[in-house]
Amino acid sequence: MHLSIHTLLDYRIDAEADILLQIEAAANEPTQRVIEGRMTVATGSELHPVPVDAGLGRRTWTRGSGPFRVEYRATVDVERTVQDIAGLGVTPYADLPGEAVPYIWPSRYCQSDRFASFVAKQFGDLEGGAKILAMADWVHDQLDYVIGASDGDTGAADTFISREGICRDYAHLLISFARAAGIPARMVSAYAWNLEPQDFHAVAEIWLEDGWHMIDATRMAPIEGLVPIITGRDATDIAFMTIFGRADLQNQMVNVERLD
Amino acid sequence: MHLSIHTLLDYRIDAEADILLQIEAAANEPTQRVIEGRMTVATGSELHPVPVDAGLGRRTWTRGSGPFRVEYRATVDVERTVQDIAGLGVTPYADLPGEAVPYIWPSRYCQSDRFASFVAKQFGDLEGGAKILAMADWVHDQLDYVIGASDGDTGAADTFISREGICRDYAHLLISFARAAGIPARMVSAYAWNLEPQDFHAVAEIWLEDGWHMIDATRMAPIEGLVPIITGRDATDIAFMTIFGRADLQNQMVNVERLD
Amino acid sequence: MHLSIHTLLDYRIDAEADILLQIEAAANEPTQRVIEGRMTVATGSELHPVPVDAGLGRRTWTRGSGPFRVEYRATVDVERTVQDIAGLGVTPYADLPGEAVPYIWPSRYCQSDRFASFVAKQFGDLEGGAKILAMADWVHDQLDYVIGASDGDTGAADTFISREGICRDYAHLLISFARAAGIPARMVSAYAWNLEPQDFHAVAEIWLEDGWHMIDATRMAPIEGLVPIITGRDATDIAFMTIFGRADLQNQMVNVERLD
Amino acid sequence: MHLSIHTLLDYRIDAEADILLQIEAAANEPTQRVIEGRMTVATGSELHPVPVDAGLGRRTWTRGSGPFRVEYRATVDVERTVQDIAGLGVTPYADLPGEAVPYIWPSRYCQSDRFASFVAKQFGDLEGGAKILAMADWVHDQLDYVIGASDGDTGAADTFISREGICRDYAHLLISFARAAGIPARMVSAYAWNLEPQDFHAVAEIWLEDGWHMIDATRMAPIEGLVPIITGRDATDIAFMTIFGRADLQNQMVNVERLD
Repeated sequence: MHLSIHTLLDYRIDAEADILLQIEAAANEPTQRVIEGRMTVATGSELHPVPVDAGLGRRTWTRGSGPFRVEYRATVDVERTVQDIAGLGVTPYADLPGEAVPYIWPSRYCQSDRFASFVAKQFGDLEGGAKILAMADWVHDQLDYVIGASDGDTGAADTFISREGICRDYAHLLISFARAAGIPARMVSAYAWNLEPQDFHAVAEIWLEDGWHMIDATRMAPIEGLVPIITGRDATDIAFMTIFGRADLQNQMVNVERLD
Repeated sequence: MHLSIHTLLDYRIDAEADILLQIEAAANEPTQRVIEGRMTVATGSELHPVPVDAGLGRRTWTRGSGPFRVEYRATVDVERTVQDIAGLGVTPYADLPGEAVPYIWPSRYCQSDRFASFVAKQFGDLEGGAKILAMADWVHDQLDYVIGASDGDTGAADTFISREGICRDYAHLLISFARAAGIPARMVSAYAWNLEPQDFHAVAEIWLEDGWHMIDATRMAPIEGLVPIITGRDATDIAFMTIFGRADLQNQMVNVERLD
Repeated sequence: MHLSIHTLLDYRIDAEADILLQIEAAANEPTQRVIEGRMTVATGSELHPVPVDAGLGRRTWTRGSGPFRVEYRATVDVERTVQDIAGLGVTPYADLPGEAVPYIWPSRYCQSDRFASFVAKQFGDLEGGAKILAMADWVHDQLDYVIGASDGDTGAADTFISREGICRDYAHLLISFARAAGIPARMVSAYAWNLEPQDFHAVAEIWLEDGWHMIDATRMAPIEGLVPIITGRDATDIAFMTIFGRADLQNQMVNVERLD
Repeated sequence: MHLSIHTLLDYRIDAEADILLQIEAAANEPTQRVIEGRMTVATGSELHPVPVDAGLGRRTWTRGSGPFRVEYRATVDVERTVQDIAGLGVTPYADLPGEAVPYIWPSRYCQSDRFASFVAKQFGDLEGGAKILAMADWVHDQLDYVIGASDGDTGAADTFISREGICRDYAHLLISFARAAGIPARMVSAYAWNLEPQDFHAVAEIWLEDGWHMIDATRMAPIEGLVPIITGRDATDIAFMTIFGRADLQNQMVNVERLD
């Protein structure tokens, strides 16, 4: 799938502030190829890319004050065959590669240790990929997609109680369930073709047998059309923009179009 | 400093369980050299070392059931000149290396975002290393070292309220303060010479100017005699032993002796 | 039902401490009659009864140090016809008596506001007593009775996630569900005939149409054989014993026998 | 002091909803006399007053849909001599009247049990009223009054960390400190003469020796000019208005004027 991505973030910043951008299509994701990608800041502020220490993607620091407007345009080829994970097995702990181990633990927003008993009761009869699919079904069926129901303090434990949230909350809950069953799970931010309304998206990525597999419990966009940006333990690591100061949103736009 | 380390962990495990050990002196820590190190399991269970994805140290998986007894013996040369950090500056965000960036964010046990206002008021007049030292003084002075006052659910926010804890709680609070001031901070587990009583230890590691600097807010053991094991965002990542099942402690011993 | 109650609480208290006892069969509960009741402290410490400001029961203050042993013996006639609440309606807010109003709000252990969406989805098709019965069924079916799974910090939100607990946790969750549906609910501590093993018990009490109705989601003891002690918003108000100092349990015994 | 009170609450309610109003000057507060008081709803909805089960004040239920506008006008004589509490002693537990006992416990927003160690360290050298005054000084000095820094989920533990809040947060923290020291403390909503800007106000009320004493850690309005509305364990019980449904604020006005 040949995709064109266009993002615009327009903020008004009170006093000069550091800004962390995580909005580039990941160049080190094996199922996509970034043909071209360019980030520009209207004020001409310098951009400092920094590699991630673990996982996919790249971060970029910059600074801004007053009107701050950043654009990102890219063309990406996605060649992702979505595998049916139903038959995939769980990797024994001792065989997990170093990159997968940290994703078996609870994290700030994914309090997986608290779900051990629920997950054992609800999904204990299933194994491997079939268990993950049942978890994703449960999350999809039990949650309502409600914009404004969650905020930056909302974790999986809250979402499990409130039964409402947006893509990050769906992902946090699925990730927590997977980890509670001993299956490594991380979070991926992504551009998403055919997502309505167009916005940044986030899904869970699960380690089964042969590698990471993206699962979108919201079912709002096809996995084939996702363009991963960056991975992390949970939303903490993958925010598309962090302004270290006070700022007001003026305008924000994400547009993903299929070219072929 | 020439140190001899001897650790014994003796547990009784209900049913066969996976076990993660993080008890080896870090071979990739620049200020120490592991002359020799050997981990042995009494039952002869196979040991599967796995590299860490980010930071110092190495993890080892094994399995056990019934009586489980692991020993680790090592000889380590520590040549660490403890730097006076008072004059060290903070690295601007844009100049942070990729390995430091994830340590500016809140994590499961270090809710640094919640301390922003307190840290600004309490330490706002200070800069860089001097600020970190004032934070460590505050943690040392305001907390009482009380064994049993905290458990595996206790985070920095709890400790800030209860004013009681052990080494992990002192480290979590100092790390949270540092991150709240925009300074990367992570947690290190370590063997500690001259720690009374002898046990595993944990301290904060702060990124200033030229690299990571260990700070022990408990002041219970000299930095010169610490032997780092593994680093992480907080206690989540660095537990010396995790048994994925039910187990009872039979005996646990840590002994660090100076040979020179 | 004619019941004989015998309770023994035996503690060792470090330094002289105030003690609050809430262990007497409630004299102002309309469906029971306390024929005789006597509380005695082995050391002869003075007992200061104090009326409750709202609800059933009575509190007693005393003091102790070193060995502290209190006994309570009573004979109680219980004449409680357990009503089928399935057909009972909810009282409109405006018709609630003053004594019921505070029990529509969240309390320390019953975070009912967080369950609004879940309760609407899960029980929204039902009304009045039938809704309460469905809630009690859900709590009974989804929780496992696990001693040691909860402690004095555990609230309904935790129990909803962990799916484990004891009588206080079952009651907290049912109370939270009821309040989330706008139905007043409080907690009652009680002696319980036929409870195995014998111990203090706690159940929910729900306001429907004509008054308070006890519901025991654990189903461990018949409502007909309960002897209410004291009521409150949640476990905060109804602990059978609070020692304002350090103490060690030596022995604790509750015995309820049917005499007729 | 002769005060005229005028309150206007103007909301737009989506669908017909129950409404609980707690906005009348308390008729049963001994240091004030309500000369006249009248509540009116523009739509003429019926008003159902209901007595409180414990403490000061009265509640009123009504219903509304679409535009909902309630006014309250009263004239109140306040004759309150503010006592210097510095020399007042703490009432021994056993001598507390029934009405004071529930206010020694933690409540939803006042997690007093968590502050035991801090309060002992910080205020342990002081006694009785002098201790309470030191607590009020601490709260006043350590918190910044920041509108928007807290919301309906914010409790004293949060405020202790964030060091920011409004009157309810100041009161919650002071109440928590007092209870942690074994001193009964409750919360009072009030009209406040000379409060800038004019609004509903809330303060702590502490039981010392001879009764309840209001303390305002915000120091924004003189105690002599407070007109208590209703008391409770914390903000849960004393909200001036609760709409059991969705509603939008149109206008809200509180005006307190001195007539003599």
